[in-house]
Amino acid sequence: MGRRPHAQDFDAREHLLDVAVALFAERGIANTTVAQIAAASGVTSAMVHYWFQTREKLLDALVEERLAVAFDSIWEPVDAEHDDPLAMTQGIVRRMFDITGKMPWLPSLWLREVINEGGLLRERAFAHIPVQKVAGFGQNIARGRASGQLNAQLEPLLLFNSVLALVMLPQATAKIWQRLNPLASLDRATLERHVVALLTQGMSVAAATSAQVPTPSPLRPKRKPS
Amino acid sequence: MGRRPHAQDFDAREHLLDVAVALFAERGIANTTVAQIAAASGVTSAMVHYWFQTREKLLDALVEERLAVAFDSIWEPVDAEHDDPLAMTQGIVRRMFDITGKMPWLPSLWLREVINEGGLLRERAFAHIPVQKVAGFGQNIARGRASGQLNAQLEPLLLFNSVLALVMLPQATAKIWQRLNPLASLDRATLERHVVALLTQGMSVAAATSAQVPTPSPLRPKRKPS
Repeated sequence: MGRRPHAQDFDAREHLLDVAVALFAERGIANTTVAQIAAASGVTSAMVHYWFQTREKLLDALVEERLAVAFDSIWEPVDAEHDDPLAMTQGIVRRMFDITGKMPWLPSLWLREVINEGGLLRERAFAHIPVQKVAGFGQNIARGRASGQLNAQLEPLLLFNSVLALVMLPQATAKIWQRLNPLASLDRATLERHVVALLTQGMSVAAATSAQVPTPSPLRPKRKPS
Repeated sequence: MGRRPHAQDFDAREHLLDVAVALFAERGIANTTVAQIAAASGVTSAMVHYWFQTREKLLDALVEERLAVAFDSIWEPVDAEHDDPLAMTQGIVRRMFDITGKMPWLPSLWLREVINEGGLLRERAFAHIPVQKVAGFGQNIARGRASGQLNAQLEPLLLFNSVLALVMLPQATAKIWQRLNPLASLDRATLERHVVALLTQGMSVAAATSAQVPTPSPLRPKRKPS
């Protein structure tokens, strides 16, 4: 108290945040006590209180120093005014995978505590969403659709929801999905290839041979691409 | 007790299940008491116990008589051995929207209590997943990919996860999504058109003009479809 903080102190604080966020993602915030965070970090509960005072302030720190950082790293490079729609979307997907690689707890925490109603980070996280950028993304897609560059059947304001769903859900539900599909590869490279392929092709204008949504008919001949 | 049940009794039981599932989806199972279910149904707690004995048996009934019915209605018509991959996928998407139309509580309950780790219906629901059909779906997609009919970059064992994500996530997160995008239309027709377009086009083989995942370059000329 009163002394100047040492680098080591910040490491201790960072470590506490890392441990807390991993426990929150694994068990849920409501099921995790300060005593458990302290025990898992190898310190006393008093030390957790020293750094974060209250549980609420710990949650504030977590959102500001982890979730908001994740949001910024995904959205900061977006120039929705000038970016090519496909390149913009691919960049967002790539940076989402980058950040979930660095923050492997993110998909679970996002599912449990951010998008889930009653999630304890919902309001706090909402305040950090770069609303202008998200709106710009939708406008960019709308322009691409209007100019004929993108699939005319897409709904511009729903596309970012689709991106989030495709990238985050398989990671957030990896355990149960792996149980259902023991042969499924959920490594980043496979998942990213799949998501990028589905979005890139799905956003593109249909080729002449697949321009219509095919009607379900067992008689439809299977054509090889020419 | 001992008397023959009347049709009216079954209506009362069905009504209790409907009320319970709506409350569970809205507040979470852990946050909903039998007394609250009784009050919202206009009956006494004793009546809830009369029909379902215990809270656990109420959850069993809910999974068997609601969730399992939903799973079956989606998967029953699938003939993974013979269906065309695109038609099969489109049929699953259409039936998912049919069932979420009839069971508007389903996406929230699915997010909260089925896929969420620690969800209280997770194990019960898992037992009702038609594992053979889901595996057959993956094999069907793999055959379509191998024969050149489908996008070669797709991962067959991840595609059903993508379908689920695209259909269920926007509905499960409709409230927060609408708050972020007040102009977004989340009505069934718009959402279904968007999802079907993204999947149908995304699963198809790329046209010559969009065969490669484009490299992000601001110099890439924007081509109108010819």
